[in-house]
Amino acid sequence: MGWAIALHGGAGDIPLDLPADKRQARENALKHCLDIGVSPLKLGRSPLDVVELVVRELENHPLFNAGLGSVLTADGSVEMEACIMDGNTKKCGAVSGLKTVVNAISLARLLMEKTPHIYLAFEGAEAFAREQGVETQEPSHFITPANVERLKQAKEANRVQLDYTQSIEKEVKVETHEVSGDSQLGTVGCVAVDGDGNLATATSTGGVVNKMAGRIGDTPIVGAGTYANTYCAVSATGIGEAIIRGTIARDVAALMEYKGVSLKEAADYVVKNGAPEGTFGLIAVSATGEIAMPFNTTGMFRACASQDGSSEIAIH
Amino acid sequence: MGWAIALHGGAGDIPLDLPADKRQARENALKHCLDIGVSPLKLGRSPLDVVELVVRELENHPLFNAGLGSVLTADGSVEMEACIMDGNTKKCGAVSGLKTVVNAISLARLLMEKTPHIYLAFEGAEAFAREQGVETQEPSHFITPANVERLKQAKEANRVQLDYTQSIEKEVKVETHEVSGDSQLGTVGCVAVDGDGNLATATSTGGVVNKMAGRIGDTPIVGAGTYANTYCAVSATGIGEAIIRGTIARDVAALMEYKGVSLKEAADYVVKNGAPEGTFGLIAVSATGEIAMPFNTTGMFRACASQDGSSEIAIH
Repeated sequence: MGWAIALHGGAGDIPLDLPADKRQARENALKHCLDIGVSPLKLGRSPLDVVELVVRELENHPLFNAGLGSVLTADGSVEMEACIMDGNTKKCGAVSGLKTVVNAISLARLLMEKTPHIYLAFEGAEAFAREQGVETQEPSHFITPANVERLKQAKEANRVQLDYTQSIEKEVKVETHEVSGDSQLGTVGCVAVDGDGNLATATSTGGVVNKMAGRIGDTPIVGAGTYANTYCAVSATGIGEAIIRGTIARDVAALMEYKGVSLKEAADYVVKNGAPEGTFGLIAVSATGEIAMPFNTTGMFRACASQDGSSEIAIH
Repeated sequence: MGWAIALHGGAGDIPLDLPADKRQARENALKHCLDIGVSPLKLGRSPLDVVELVVRELENHPLFNAGLGSVLTADGSVEMEACIMDGNTKKCGAVSGLKTVVNAISLARLLMEKTPHIYLAFEGAEAFAREQGVETQEPSHFITPANVERLKQAKEANRVQLDYTQSIEKEVKVETHEVSGDSQLGTVGCVAVDGDGNLATATSTGGVVNKMAGRIGDTPIVGAGTYANTYCAVSATGIGEAIIRGTIARDVAALMEYKGVSLKEAADYVVKNGAPEGTFGLIAVSATGEIAMPFNTTGMFRACASQDGSSEIAIH
């Protein structure tokens, strides 16, 4: 028992020879975001508050694919999505298709708390953001030079959307390759549990580079990219379509609930059997403070800490 | 073993004293749609083709809440959504926010077969529809006088979206009441299996009356309203938010997969424990041709048939 927290900044085909300066920048960012979560968790703030805080920080960081730093759709725009879920109540909120909202995860939480709905998308979600008065920016604010370059390269390689006459299997393979010497696949996410076993999860993303405008991935899908109940809290990252088909986040929890296995066993089983090799990773914490961070890609930007004093920051 | 098919036209608080003419019209429609599915299934067409055919017919019928006959959002527009999934391959397609597409389910299937993506929404989905040349109509085509009246009554009763300062629990209760003497809650859906155990599911909906523009429900969420694998195919209907939280469709399959129970046991467990009383129903078929159609509402418009000659059409 005891508090525990884990976070990720995306999984994918991360080069083993990632240059030292790039590695250091990402490790520093992971460390910074972990600290943002550990302090309030120690002070007794709710896991729901903590995962929102951490994901906001990850969204604000241009090195990760969410908020500022989101990858671009085929038409060069940003369409952000996010989901948050509370384990005890199974209350949840999700948003998609945001073009101006600085912190998608906080809009998801407002939707959860202030409306009878769970999931709001595109213009309706933007209208709700304006009504709630959350911070917004011009769409161009979220577009980084690195992501303009990534889209250009993806288009030259005719990846993902443009060549969708190809079979899905072929496409998925191509998608796993990173675009410009540094993975921007996946998402950001955080899971947390307090000493009383209260669980929460949050995930946020810009999606996949060169996606068709209007494409929704796994992040906002409760049970796919994001899920929490009284057993565990899970946030997945990788190729959204594989994660949706595999109902990855719910399956970790379902294995604990219906098969009686531990978090580690459940997470390992899902990473091995839930979707093809090379497609995703996940972070999870259980009600008793266990942590699991398995992946079947070459790497996953990740960090964790728990009340027993253990802590880890890792990429491969 | 043997083929089996089940379909639904929504679950909810259907009055026990539904007038005879209304009852008859709905039973006739269910019978007609069942026949549409049984004939090709007998002739050996794939379950994926069959569920698409049946759901198209249900979408085209103005008595059900999908396609023509979809209920209206708070701003008086129609926003249709649908999902289709193949059990063996777990390939799936989903669409949301359609305003002009006559058969949302067929657009979901095109997305599944022609793109690397699973889920496309709002303007992106409309653009894909135009590109694929599927049948469209002016948005006004889908709006029936009955649904204009339903929205008016819902607004007068200040239901769902307008009063979202109220707690979700309170709202959910209100939502379960039907609006004008006949339930238009829920969705339409069909599940089918052939003699070789190939499974498929399809669900389509207009959502919930007076929903916020941009609201997404359970129907297009793989694992919530729609799910199929090699164990079973499931389509759920009712209050979308409850079905999403309960990951209803995946849980029926997960109980079979991880707990080794029969389809009937799995479906009964989920209807009892997956979401509060009065919120939903589901239809499901297993690879061996079992059928389950449980619900925890007062009724569910439903029909089924199987190779052994049994057939049923029922409401309460």
